[in-house]
Amino acid sequence: MTSTNAWPPVRGIAYGGDYTPEQWPRETWDEDVALMREAGVDLVSVGIFAWALIETSEGVFDFAWLDELLDLLHENGISVDLGTPTASPPAWFFAAHPEARVVRRDGAVMGFGARGMASHSSAAYREAIVRIATALAERYAQHPAVVLWHVHNEYGVPVGEDYSEQSVQAWREWLRDRHGSLDELNRAWGTTFWGQRYGEWAEVGAPAAAPSVVNPAQRLDFARFTDHKLRECFILERDAIRRYATQPITTNFMANQSWTTDLWAWAREVDIVSDDHYLWAADPDGEIGLAIAADLSRSVGGGKPWILMEHSTSAVNWQPRNIAKRPGEMARNSLSHVARGADAILFFQWRASRSGAEKFHSAMIPHAGTGSRVWREVVDLGAALGTLDELRGSRVVADVAILWDFESFWAQDLEWRPSVDVSHAERVRAFYERLWRDGVTVDFALPGQDLSGYRLVIAPAQYLVSAPDAANLTSFVERGGTLLVSFFSGIVDENDAVHAGGFGAPLRDALGVRVEEFLPLREGSTCTIALGDDASTRLTADAWQEDLILEGAQVIGTYLDGPGAGKAAITRHARGAGIGWYVSTRLDADGLAKLMRRVYADAGVSPSDLPEGVEVVTRRGADADYVVAVNHREDAVELPVTGVELLAGREVAGSLTIAAGDVAVVRTTHTREGGGR
Amino acid sequence: MTSTNAWPPVRGIAYGGDYTPEQWPRETWDEDVALMREAGVDLVSVGIFAWALIETSEGVFDFAWLDELLDLLHENGISVDLGTPTASPPAWFFAAHPEARVVRRDGAVMGFGARGMASHSSAAYREAIVRIATALAERYAQHPAVVLWHVHNEYGVPVGEDYSEQSVQAWREWLRDRHGSLDELNRAWGTTFWGQRYGEWAEVGAPAAAPSVVNPAQRLDFARFTDHKLRECFILERDAIRRYATQPITTNFMANQSWTTDLWAWAREVDIVSDDHYLWAADPDGEIGLAIAADLSRSVGGGKPWILMEHSTSAVNWQPRNIAKRPGEMARNSLSHVARGADAILFFQWRASRSGAEKFHSAMIPHAGTGSRVWREVVDLGAALGTLDELRGSRVVADVAILWDFESFWAQDLEWRPSVDVSHAERVRAFYERLWRDGVTVDFALPGQDLSGYRLVIAPAQYLVSAPDAANLTSFVERGGTLLVSFFSGIVDENDAVHAGGFGAPLRDALGVRVEEFLPLREGSTCTIALGDDASTRLTADAWQEDLILEGAQVIGTYLDGPGAGKAAITRHARGAGIGWYVSTRLDADGLAKLMRRVYADAGVSPSDLPEGVEVVTRRGADADYVVAVNHREDAVELPVTGVELLAGREVAGSLTIAAGDVAVVRTTHTREGGGR
Amino acid sequence: MTSTNAWPPVRGIAYGGDYTPEQWPRETWDEDVALMREAGVDLVSVGIFAWALIETSEGVFDFAWLDELLDLLHENGISVDLGTPTASPPAWFFAAHPEARVVRRDGAVMGFGARGMASHSSAAYREAIVRIATALAERYAQHPAVVLWHVHNEYGVPVGEDYSEQSVQAWREWLRDRHGSLDELNRAWGTTFWGQRYGEWAEVGAPAAAPSVVNPAQRLDFARFTDHKLRECFILERDAIRRYATQPITTNFMANQSWTTDLWAWAREVDIVSDDHYLWAADPDGEIGLAIAADLSRSVGGGKPWILMEHSTSAVNWQPRNIAKRPGEMARNSLSHVARGADAILFFQWRASRSGAEKFHSAMIPHAGTGSRVWREVVDLGAALGTLDELRGSRVVADVAILWDFESFWAQDLEWRPSVDVSHAERVRAFYERLWRDGVTVDFALPGQDLSGYRLVIAPAQYLVSAPDAANLTSFVERGGTLLVSFFSGIVDENDAVHAGGFGAPLRDALGVRVEEFLPLREGSTCTIALGDDASTRLTADAWQEDLILEGAQVIGTYLDGPGAGKAAITRHARGAGIGWYVSTRLDADGLAKLMRRVYADAGVSPSDLPEGVEVVTRRGADADYVVAVNHREDAVELPVTGVELLAGREVAGSLTIAAGDVAVVRTTHTREGGGR
Repeated sequence: MTSTNAWPPVRGIAYGGDYTPEQWPRETWDEDVALMREAGVDLVSVGIFAWALIETSEGVFDFAWLDELLDLLHENGISVDLGTPTASPPAWFFAAHPEARVVRRDGAVMGFGARGMASHSSAAYREAIVRIATALAERYAQHPAVVLWHVHNEYGVPVGEDYSEQSVQAWREWLRDRHGSLDELNRAWGTTFWGQRYGEWAEVGAPAAAPSVVNPAQRLDFARFTDHKLRECFILERDAIRRYATQPITTNFMANQSWTTDLWAWAREVDIVSDDHYLWAADPDGEIGLAIAADLSRSVGGGKPWILMEHSTSAVNWQPRNIAKRPGEMARNSLSHVARGADAILFFQWRASRSGAEKFHSAMIPHAGTGSRVWREVVDLGAALGTLDELRGSRVVADVAILWDFESFWAQDLEWRPSVDVSHAERVRAFYERLWRDGVTVDFALPGQDLSGYRLVIAPAQYLVSAPDAANLTSFVERGGTLLVSFFSGIVDENDAVHAGGFGAPLRDALGVRVEEFLPLREGSTCTIALGDDASTRLTADAWQEDLILEGAQVIGTYLDGPGAGKAAITRHARGAGIGWYVSTRLDADGLAKLMRRVYADAGVSPSDLPEGVEVVTRRGADADYVVAVNHREDAVELPVTGVELLAGREVAGSLTIAAGDVAVVRTTHTREGGGR
Repeated sequence: MTSTNAWPPVRGIAYGGDYTPEQWPRETWDEDVALMREAGVDLVSVGIFAWALIETSEGVFDFAWLDELLDLLHENGISVDLGTPTASPPAWFFAAHPEARVVRRDGAVMGFGARGMASHSSAAYREAIVRIATALAERYAQHPAVVLWHVHNEYGVPVGEDYSEQSVQAWREWLRDRHGSLDELNRAWGTTFWGQRYGEWAEVGAPAAAPSVVNPAQRLDFARFTDHKLRECFILERDAIRRYATQPITTNFMANQSWTTDLWAWAREVDIVSDDHYLWAADPDGEIGLAIAADLSRSVGGGKPWILMEHSTSAVNWQPRNIAKRPGEMARNSLSHVARGADAILFFQWRASRSGAEKFHSAMIPHAGTGSRVWREVVDLGAALGTLDELRGSRVVADVAILWDFESFWAQDLEWRPSVDVSHAERVRAFYERLWRDGVTVDFALPGQDLSGYRLVIAPAQYLVSAPDAANLTSFVERGGTLLVSFFSGIVDENDAVHAGGFGAPLRDALGVRVEEFLPLREGSTCTIALGDDASTRLTADAWQEDLILEGAQVIGTYLDGPGAGKAAITRHARGAGIGWYVSTRLDADGLAKLMRRVYADAGVSPSDLPEGVEVVTRRGADADYVVAVNHREDAVELPVTGVELLAGREVAGSLTIAAGDVAVVRTTHTREGGGR
Repeated sequence: MTSTNAWPPVRGIAYGGDYTPEQWPRETWDEDVALMREAGVDLVSVGIFAWALIETSEGVFDFAWLDELLDLLHENGISVDLGTPTASPPAWFFAAHPEARVVRRDGAVMGFGARGMASHSSAAYREAIVRIATALAERYAQHPAVVLWHVHNEYGVPVGEDYSEQSVQAWREWLRDRHGSLDELNRAWGTTFWGQRYGEWAEVGAPAAAPSVVNPAQRLDFARFTDHKLRECFILERDAIRRYATQPITTNFMANQSWTTDLWAWAREVDIVSDDHYLWAADPDGEIGLAIAADLSRSVGGGKPWILMEHSTSAVNWQPRNIAKRPGEMARNSLSHVARGADAILFFQWRASRSGAEKFHSAMIPHAGTGSRVWREVVDLGAALGTLDELRGSRVVADVAILWDFESFWAQDLEWRPSVDVSHAERVRAFYERLWRDGVTVDFALPGQDLSGYRLVIAPAQYLVSAPDAANLTSFVERGGTLLVSFFSGIVDENDAVHAGGFGAPLRDALGVRVEEFLPLREGSTCTIALGDDASTRLTADAWQEDLILEGAQVIGTYLDGPGAGKAAITRHARGAGIGWYVSTRLDADGLAKLMRRVYADAGVSPSDLPEGVEVVTRRGADADYVVAVNHREDAVELPVTGVELLAGREVAGSLTIAAGDVAVVRTTHTREGGGR
């Protein structure tokens, strides 16, 4: 069969959460559905951890409770996102197939008692997931409640890499496919270094714990292999379901909170992207991390609407200090997701668990019950989302792209890099945060994709760049784009080998500069850069300088101190119709702000005039634009806009006051034509 | 046989230490006993690590040296606490029974070469400990030197949990006994969460390392199982000895420095409680930790006299920085133990070892020999204790109890709690320290025990509370008691499941309040509370706030800032004849001081008027009270007391000057009638 | 055969580096040799990681590429240091001999994929290394390019200790040899403590992970065993080569950056000492660590010229932050090594690797190519060294020795020491740095060696001292030497047993003092010492005090605060014709400076008058002295000297100006007669 509908047949912005009634007595189910109706819940995810209750022993199924549950939900008008429970095989599975257990890098064998899939390469596991997915699809493909399939849960977390024997066997097969011959593998991995040449396939092992640092190309390939094998497991389930079912199929990503899966590749395999997002409590500006996750979810799906499959009504339970959300924060978070393209807002989970590892995770019904602030806000949010039906299917359009390349991140995270202070996550966040504060909407992008729709492309950390990707970026500049590349980019190829020509060589044409030597700074050291024609502006940076080789670029910033004192720090290069900027140090927030004003000017990008902390994103619909505004500030702001504010149903003429902590969604006329310059 | 005497037939306050002459040539033994006589030593512990010297190979015994040693000691009037050496099985044992080795959570198998028992569930180990205990009892039960039996050493340290195959087998048996059926186990552990349901007993494993957090109820049961199995080992030895011997039998606890054994249960199995205590060197107020240990030792034994089985004459060797005791500190420590009910003061160890892991541990005879300060103080202490014979058997009476519940502590220590800043040990210490500084004598108590003797009961961290325990605490209030409960209490039941009704629900009647939501603070954040009717007093707190649901309680303190700003922080509830206080944040020392003045007033508890740092505890004898005073201050203090100071043998009329760092013991007339209000 | 020449037949100060052309296409080789000639390179190390390319499968050899390489080098006048590749056995070796893999203390088995030898005790490994060493020697002993053999690489790193079964078997054999009988082993290890007595050899295991701290004497013996077994592997290879070859044989040490090998013993087995040294980037005064390494390399070789086998042209890649060398720093480093006795300056490596774990390690040809600063400095350094031919074979003479005893360091590093703040490395560096700043040239020495050539011997951390070594130190004093002993010295014997008589007893005659008790300070505490007859000088110290027993020594410094307040801190003792100083605390840099002025006066040692940071060392040749000066300062200095500055070829009359960061080598007439007083 093929999928017959690209979006589940639910109203407007779907609303709900994970629902695990197997934890509760039957009478609670009736209370649940009544409360769901009160809250406006119309979509719930069920069955995600229910394998042991559905297949009670190998090949023996008990569907009675699930039949009853789906019927009950359907009778109450609540649609179902039906999960396959393969993220947590039952105890009987591991007892019968102990060889399927995951082995850590140090050789420790992972036991049962928490959660987590078996080895991605276990034949027994693969057989079992197809069996359970098939059984579910066969039984429920026609059930009217089921509008979506939810395969597995958060692939890559908590089980990713596996060093078991079956994984090593699969790894050798995978390498044979990738490299064709041992000679080619030896070349790609540079095994002449440290005497690692392989003479037989059987000699090739996983990059397990070893006396010193393991070959980085081998480790990078192992990350690719892990991603591929996890995805194979998804595809096995997806295809088993598709034999019987026409509903769209998804699996919930973790966007920027998991790193083992290449979401660009995964997004090509799902019908709809869905994502789980949790605020990082230690971050006082957690809403910026949220925005990154949301923009990434949208971007990997090519801009299509996506599902926020999980977030939290208040605190989570797995961080060091689990901060409760402040009043209104749940609504602000939800509207930020909607603003960035989510057409469904779901939570983990409906009712707080009394037992188990996540009992301190907040829920739509907290332990304190329905007399609580959280429940009141859940009901209010349901009502608010109910006013936004017309947003469904509208799209976000961005002029700026930030490069996000999992393969590069995997490579950069390997051992023995020039400085522990150099982090792709830190630089991506720094640049993203700058644009977020400037009110500039951003997509994430791959370096090799079509970038012609963007005015400005930022590469905060493109450590690994292939020759074709470098050519694509160069072409982007030549055709009129503005490209900004931050330090420690363009260093290695797809095998983590330094490019011929040295650091930055693949981007030398685009940037007019390459790097003679890295100049990492000592811990805690800072440096100063003089910026501009008159060199009167001072920027502060830390962690890193470089000794640049100028190949045509103009020096815009100069180091005043540190090992690079007197040398170029920031350059600008006119190439073809475009501009290539290069920043060879880790600028602080103020420095980035001053720099980006110049870069925006080159790119023709207009930052917002609103005060920082007012998040405004426009979704473009067929007939109107929707300005979604979230005021994270502790004072009211005036938003210049004309149209209809949908949440309150009021006309707005020219200016809308948004109270401290409040949100607004204004239907307005189309304000701009298309993306791109 | 049964024990015929509840306390060993030694004079007054017994004095001595661990004696391991097997490390020294025979001529040293003669020097040792002569020096023991010089120091007034009348009780030594022998044989604790001597298994390999007594049973030289499996079933082959050599008692000659031990015969000679016991005879020598007896001839010199020194009584013997005879140890069973089962805390360190011989090399031949592990060589013959490699399967008996302990396995860590991560699967690593623990080798020989240090010390530590075998797996508590090993059949070979259990057979061997009964054999050696029987052999010792058979031979020495009638030896006139032997006045006490000392089973094993510090159960739970360094070996507690074991993940070996035989342990898993025993665990399944234990679970079958505890839960009766798999259905009941599945219910208790909440295995529907994360899909952990067990269908066969053989599927249930130990909570070994797993991909994520293991089921907390499973881990809590494993802690109980470990405690039970260790205790079974003790009982096997005890009963083997009792077949031949009538002397009392003990095993040395670690009070508040080990957490794997539920000392309330253990105290029921020993004839006499004994405890090892070592100052925590990094703590400049280590004497407060000492007092906790001593009060806990007395409390678990129901108030009966106990033995300080080990402490140190000066520095230990296993802490990061092992601080030597200052002159007089050893005497102060010893008198603090006596004050809190110890009727025997022993050290680890008699003579410092030249070899091995503990050679830098101080001893009664240090490496520097008898020309040393330490030796002089050892002799002086022996003489001082010799003046206190009449204290023996007298009892400490307290009006205040602090709850100390190992099961609750085990549960609270599991993973994924709301904030890493919440620690039972920290809060117990904080409240205990407040009372110590206020001169209020404290017992420790279980929440389910008879509390009618106390005016005030404090629950600094009663995270786990069963319904019967909650009822007992409520009844305590209703009958006129004052109960103070600190935050993160009353959260879960005996299976670590959140109580129906939400956080704090079991104590809602006693306190007139429950908790809607936890509001952990970010790292380093503090907050301010306005206290009192006029709200003019300011308290400082950190780490935690809560959003309270008032159910009748009066608000005594209000948050002025933080996420709970404007809401109740501290409440007071009149219930029946008593009062229930609730404190929803982590008050600092000053804040606790201000709060406790109000609580004392409610409870009718009178804090001391002495300056902080003067430790005064009264032991009640049949015919007199004994006021034991320890001046930890650097200046002299005046103690208002009338009677006879026993150490110096002087009359005291109304006031006694105690010099800086000095101690005093004053026989006085009974000053109060019984405990309780 | 025997070695026929003690130094390879290369010109003057040899120059070059590791050369691994197997990573590059053949055409690069030609470019390499041309560039080597440009840079003055005349010695390269080849083959070190090439096992898999030479012995392509077990017993199958391919010498063609190596033949071609050696011929090419020879044709270009470049000599070869030919490596045996046994530090990294091929994949086929581990695949065929999995039992040869190294096992960690916790039982984890080390995999392939990084680098590192097999178990030192593996029969298969030993057979394989003899086979490859023999094959290489047989083929290349007569090759005219080969002037030196380079066995293995950096023994002890990254593989040292091994807990595999074959290692345990070898360990039992080794113990039998060392101790003769089990009774003697039991005595030496003090196995009566903690009940560890062994009754059969088969019961003795390696000191693997255990429930608590493993017997320290066992661990110390295991360190000795590991060192011995590694050295056995070296000797096997050396002797295999010697069957065919007459060239000198070396293996590259790691001096003060590896601790598993006793370099005094290793130096006796090599024909020439060679050393690898890398700056510790976090240390802003890394040149002092360099000087320690260089002096230690010279000292273990008995003062003979040595080879700097590896250092770096700029940054390394394996530290947290890999700081690039500043312009001129590579030359300063190189000249410091020459100053301290190196007659060859080599780098890791010739050309930067594009692949593998060390691609970010700097090289003579960096990734940026020959247009770079690094390459220019490499060429300049080659030219500079070319002016120094006459220095070859000249020697450094020192009046002062600092004790450096690997066995003592191994023992001190074991667990459960009195304070984590006490570190031998810290104190050695502190005293060495003081002398470095004072311009005093230092040898390192063993406590048991002939010390008669020195005026002053410093024992910064002689924790372990045998009775003969103590007698040697005492004799040194009695015969007129000045001995300075720092705290925590003279504590244990060769079995880590505390000396009879207590701490410091073996040195009581030399110092007139011993230690009653250690008084470690709390973290962050400091104390003050009053120094001198009028006690007017104040010194600051931290971490440690001691309670001293004066046995004739004069008190020179007194504690003003801390636990030892009022007691002796620093003593001076006249014994025979000499003086024994004792320092019982951790003086800071300023305190050490003040103290050492007094000690120098006693010893007749004259510190330099130059400003700190000007490193001046004299090499004594047959006909002249060579004053090597390195100015680490940021200003110019005047060096009082007369002769010929060789680098510039200029006459110097009385004074030479050395610019900031510059170096100089002045041939001058002999300035002093012999060493010793």
